[in-house]
Amino acid sequence: MAFRTAASATQAAPASVSVPIAVGAAPPPPPLAQQPSSSSDFAPFIPGFLHWVRICNNGAAAAAAGEFLDLSVAGKTVGYLKADFAERLLQFPEVFQRCSASGSSSGVAVHPRLATQQQRTEAIAGVLQQLRAEGLIEGWRDELYPAVQAFHDEPAFLVERAAAPHFGIKAYGVHINGYVTLPDGSRELWVARRSRSKPTWPGKLDHIVAGGQPHGLSCQENVVKECEEEASVPEQLAVRARAAGAVSYTSLQPAGLKRDVLYCYDLELPADFVPQPQDGEVEEFMCMPVHRVAEIVATTNEYKENCALVIIDWFMRHGYLTPDMPGYLELLHGLRSGDCS
Amino acid sequence: MAFRTAASATQAAPASVSVPIAVGAAPPPPPLAQQPSSSSDFAPFIPGFLHWVRICNNGAAAAAAGEFLDLSVAGKTVGYLKADFAERLLQFPEVFQRCSASGSSSGVAVHPRLATQQQRTEAIAGVLQQLRAEGLIEGWRDELYPAVQAFHDEPAFLVERAAAPHFGIKAYGVHINGYVTLPDGSRELWVARRSRSKPTWPGKLDHIVAGGQPHGLSCQENVVKECEEEASVPEQLAVRARAAGAVSYTSLQPAGLKRDVLYCYDLELPADFVPQPQDGEVEEFMCMPVHRVAEIVATTNEYKENCALVIIDWFMRHGYLTPDMPGYLELLHGLRSGDCS
Repeated sequence: MAFRTAASATQAAPASVSVPIAVGAAPPPPPLAQQPSSSSDFAPFIPGFLHWVRICNNGAAAAAAGEFLDLSVAGKTVGYLKADFAERLLQFPEVFQRCSASGSSSGVAVHPRLATQQQRTEAIAGVLQQLRAEGLIEGWRDELYPAVQAFHDEPAFLVERAAAPHFGIKAYGVHINGYVTLPDGSRELWVARRSRSKPTWPGKLDHIVAGGQPHGLSCQENVVKECEEEASVPEQLAVRARAAGAVSYTSLQPAGLKRDVLYCYDLELPADFVPQPQDGEVEEFMCMPVHRVAEIVATTNEYKENCALVIIDWFMRHGYLTPDMPGYLELLHGLRSGDCS
Repeated sequence: MAFRTAASATQAAPASVSVPIAVGAAPPPPPLAQQPSSSSDFAPFIPGFLHWVRICNNGAAAAAAGEFLDLSVAGKTVGYLKADFAERLLQFPEVFQRCSASGSSSGVAVHPRLATQQQRTEAIAGVLQQLRAEGLIEGWRDELYPAVQAFHDEPAFLVERAAAPHFGIKAYGVHINGYVTLPDGSRELWVARRSRSKPTWPGKLDHIVAGGQPHGLSCQENVVKECEEEASVPEQLAVRARAAGAVSYTSLQPAGLKRDVLYCYDLELPADFVPQPQDGEVEEFMCMPVHRVAEIVATTNEYKENCALVIIDWFMRHGYLTPDMPGYLELLHGLRSGDCS
């Protein structure tokens, strides 16, 4: 099957079409949003879509069963720890101490003498340097994530991104579906193939742009930054990205619990715009009919798992899935299975 | 403040604009979806929006506390009953019987000798005729709702719509946001004012079209039917309505629990289309700038409560609300607080 790739699209891009408009006349009315003509074709994909919801939430049962220890700061739970990682942290008694929560479960607390965000951040960074040297923390990113109960909370501390699953803290990201509306009203989605040399999910399919939400940037600023870095989307296009909700999930990883909220953005792109890899994270960009993307998500393992959820949410918001299809509400509900706060 | 009403819009409708296009040329590229320019203005509305989420979910705590009795059919819970209504039902021992659920709570079961949907439907209809004669069931609609655990289940029985809150069964509806995109990319929403002679929510603001989901119609068929009946939207326009998700909530009513799932549809309308009241349910239609609708929802009691949730969901999906606004995730999560199945 031949897709329009970044390279071929450049060659095939039509000359821009100039439409003569009578002087003084009103601009042409925009074409109306329509129901996707092939919407009924998506019903067979729903079981495949639900599969990815379950995969991304494979940590929900363990979390509900209390298989992790609470990590708390000043009485607020900000994360969850595997028992062996908790034991290792407790070997730094000036930073972490055992505490009994109000309920029956016990947990680990950041030492109360560390009274400020900065004190906690520095003390935990020191612990992590040692754990990194021991090989316990892999894939160091030099990027700080905030430890919070909810997104707009003042962070209890900041911590290296690679350690987020070990601490089971919430992690946030911005995921952007870039799409093109063709003259007949049908749509194509831009799809990225991750570099085969990336340490995480090499060669998997991905959004045109997606990134973790670091401390100190607004989501809007992060969208513009990631658009430029990952796909050479210029700022004047990137600022058109529209916030459209979020998905959330709880995954079990070797290191611990991945508790993610991904903010979903829609970016409608001009038909003649072609994204270009810039920071080496993407091998190629392809523009594919929506139905083909749905088929790949539903029937293959090609996509990075959490991107599948954001794409399914896009199908749902844009009318490709309808309430008359069995499994619709299960999917809608499942897309926000995680702690959505 | 002057809004474009159905009447004035008819007078003011511009002559259709004919755009000359060179023969053989491609059609003009559609304008791209853009981020609403006034999106940052919506942050102050979020507390007002959260107020409506709480109002619509004022039955959640009572339901969670087990203040209602289960109504079950063949071991499946399909509804919830207030204690006094349950006692009244148990006075029909050939139709209802007391049962002890597997847990500690007890409940009411439809008598197991009523083995088919039809048998249960007929027996319960007989009971309801008597309760209606006693004045216990008010606002009879002659419209059957299915009693189900989840939308696509085979109904355990069908029951008069007016009795749905008494039985605490799930009820479904289709709610349509009709909107217009202006040449500058900004949008206006069509708003209906309910007839002041309607028994329910007289004079309140509402969607252009909304209706309960009766047994025996698909959601798509119901959308087309309600569009025609409530606003004279012709079928060729109505079929463009795009499914875009759902909101759910659990309300406490004098009769019992209202457990609703409202399917949300987006219907982009031509600028010169003007809805017309047809079945007497609507007093007038008004076309208002999105920001003004948001202000009314957030700061007044003008809107029918559950419509507020569907409009807030539209704001969220179309970029008027963004993750950088405090309360964003609470709102996103809150819009699907009810049993979304």
